[in-house]
Amino acid sequence: MIKEAIVDKLDIQYLTNSSNTFGIVDLGCSVGPNTFITVQNIIEAVDLKYKSQGLISPDFHVFFNDHTSNDFNTLFASLIQDPEKRRYFATGVPGSFHTRLFPKGTLHFVHSSYALHWLSRVPKEVVDINSPAYNKGRINCTNAPREVLEAYATQYAKDMEAFLHARAQEIVCGGLMVILVPAIPNATQPFPVSPRILFDLLGSCLLDMAKMGVVDEARIDSFNLPMYSTSTQELETLVERNGCFSVERMEIMSRPRLSNPQVYSDHIRAVTEGLIKQHFGSEILDELFDRYSKKLEDSLSIFKSGKATLLFVLLKRNTSIIDN
Amino acid sequence: MIKEAIVDKLDIQYLTNSSNTFGIVDLGCSVGPNTFITVQNIIEAVDLKYKSQGLISPDFHVFFNDHTSNDFNTLFASLIQDPEKRRYFATGVPGSFHTRLFPKGTLHFVHSSYALHWLSRVPKEVVDINSPAYNKGRINCTNAPREVLEAYATQYAKDMEAFLHARAQEIVCGGLMVILVPAIPNATQPFPVSPRILFDLLGSCLLDMAKMGVVDEARIDSFNLPMYSTSTQELETLVERNGCFSVERMEIMSRPRLSNPQVYSDHIRAVTEGLIKQHFGSEILDELFDRYSKKLEDSLSIFKSGKATLLFVLLKRNTSIIDN
Repeated sequence: MIKEAIVDKLDIQYLTNSSNTFGIVDLGCSVGPNTFITVQNIIEAVDLKYKSQGLISPDFHVFFNDHTSNDFNTLFASLIQDPEKRRYFATGVPGSFHTRLFPKGTLHFVHSSYALHWLSRVPKEVVDINSPAYNKGRINCTNAPREVLEAYATQYAKDMEAFLHARAQEIVCGGLMVILVPAIPNATQPFPVSPRILFDLLGSCLLDMAKMGVVDEARIDSFNLPMYSTSTQELETLVERNGCFSVERMEIMSRPRLSNPQVYSDHIRAVTEGLIKQHFGSEILDELFDRYSKKLEDSLSIFKSGKATLLFVLLKRNTSIIDN
Repeated sequence: MIKEAIVDKLDIQYLTNSSNTFGIVDLGCSVGPNTFITVQNIIEAVDLKYKSQGLISPDFHVFFNDHTSNDFNTLFASLIQDPEKRRYFATGVPGSFHTRLFPKGTLHFVHSSYALHWLSRVPKEVVDINSPAYNKGRINCTNAPREVLEAYATQYAKDMEAFLHARAQEIVCGGLMVILVPAIPNATQPFPVSPRILFDLLGSCLLDMAKMGVVDEARIDSFNLPMYSTSTQELETLVERNGCFSVERMEIMSRPRLSNPQVYSDHIRAVTEGLIKQHFGSEILDELFDRYSKKLEDSLSIFKSGKATLLFVLLKRNTSIIDN
């Protein structure tokens, strides 16, 4: 789909600059190797496009971005060290993609996979005991009252606004942005499984442990995962509101779920362990994820019949509108 | 001197580009905080120059470069996290500055302090037992036979050629480069102390340990520090040979040596420990640097009367010559 995007939607004439540099960023790159494979795919497709139009290949400047706490040492050690073989100039960019990270007009292709569903913070209302959005007994917004869902949605809208505003400055006119995020399914799709259900089950394991006296229930009430799964309609509205990008493609994809509960448990542990450790201490981790694996096994039928849904979005930076 | 260079020698008219970005790199940045102070100085001076000419301040894109094995995680954690307060966009660039690191015409100001005296490798002749340049009983080229010195000088010339060739592509026409390196003193300067003497004394400690049977003498013969101190004349010749830069300023500076042997010993240990550990094992480190501190104390009179010499070089990328 990335290659298709480049073949069909990349208008090279808008992108040429005096130094013939093509800037690529992977936002939320983690430590590899997925980010290297993606970057390689992008470069091959762009290179082919330049060549097919009889143009000299640009110098590729590739920026790997993630939070400052990301292990950039590991990322850099995994890079192919010889720039000739690598075919691009590599740099690491620490910081939140909800803020500006690059000078104006530096980027030609932006990629972000499984990162934009992370919120910049937990909405403050959901941990405020006096708020109607106080999220008692849940760790996410699945099956939560309307107020909780709204608090999450409002935070997501704020974050996406900041994100799109920052990227609108950094991406050259005509530049492309590909976003991949877990999504809540459209009602028309058969057998969907919301990605939120996975976290819902994790929350219920914590509540079980509270009943056994292992975890303090009030600590669960104050724990919320800063994650939010959007829908096509919601994201489309946010892009329109920003006004600097056109939606070139937006597609819900689904794929069969894996049927191995241990794989899920390991995956969710990798994603949430840091946050859980910080809030509850590391002592509870092993028991929690043992319980989680068992609970997933009991719910196996849902997962086998359901499908994982993923949102693919291709945006193009407008050539006429400047957002300041 | 950096601020002076920017005030007197930076011709902004050559540097403006469509995106109004000003690229700065510190080559051999280590983990901070010196690199942050230098970058801040450069930015303040450039900003002032733009403002004094009634121009809008550019976006500053700052690249921190060092070997892949440098601790970029520590570097990034020490960065001021808020880009607004930092006033520049920060990135880390892993890799050797003897190779290309950036797309063509990305850089406007290059800085490198105490890094370019490191060679990319130990000259192979000095560890070849059959070569006339075999460097028996020494760990550097101080007081070495002509052949050894020539082997080091040849490697330095190769490295500087590669360095200047790479930078000539990356620096925009009219861009500046500041290099600071320890240097061998000019004959006319009073009481100089070659920086090489410090390593010479370290070598003699190793030989003492060989006499005591603690270290194998053959291992010392095969150990050489990949460092070389240049002179003004030598560096000037290499810059001329490259042909893409004009020498705007080249100055030998000297400053009184510190008189505390422990400070020297700690400094030299920090610089050489990795290489010594790799070659001899970590067991010898404590004894070696105990001996070294004592030997430095015995040689204190030399250091007190001598001065440390440092070479400051300001180069400007020619506006007419393109090196390919």
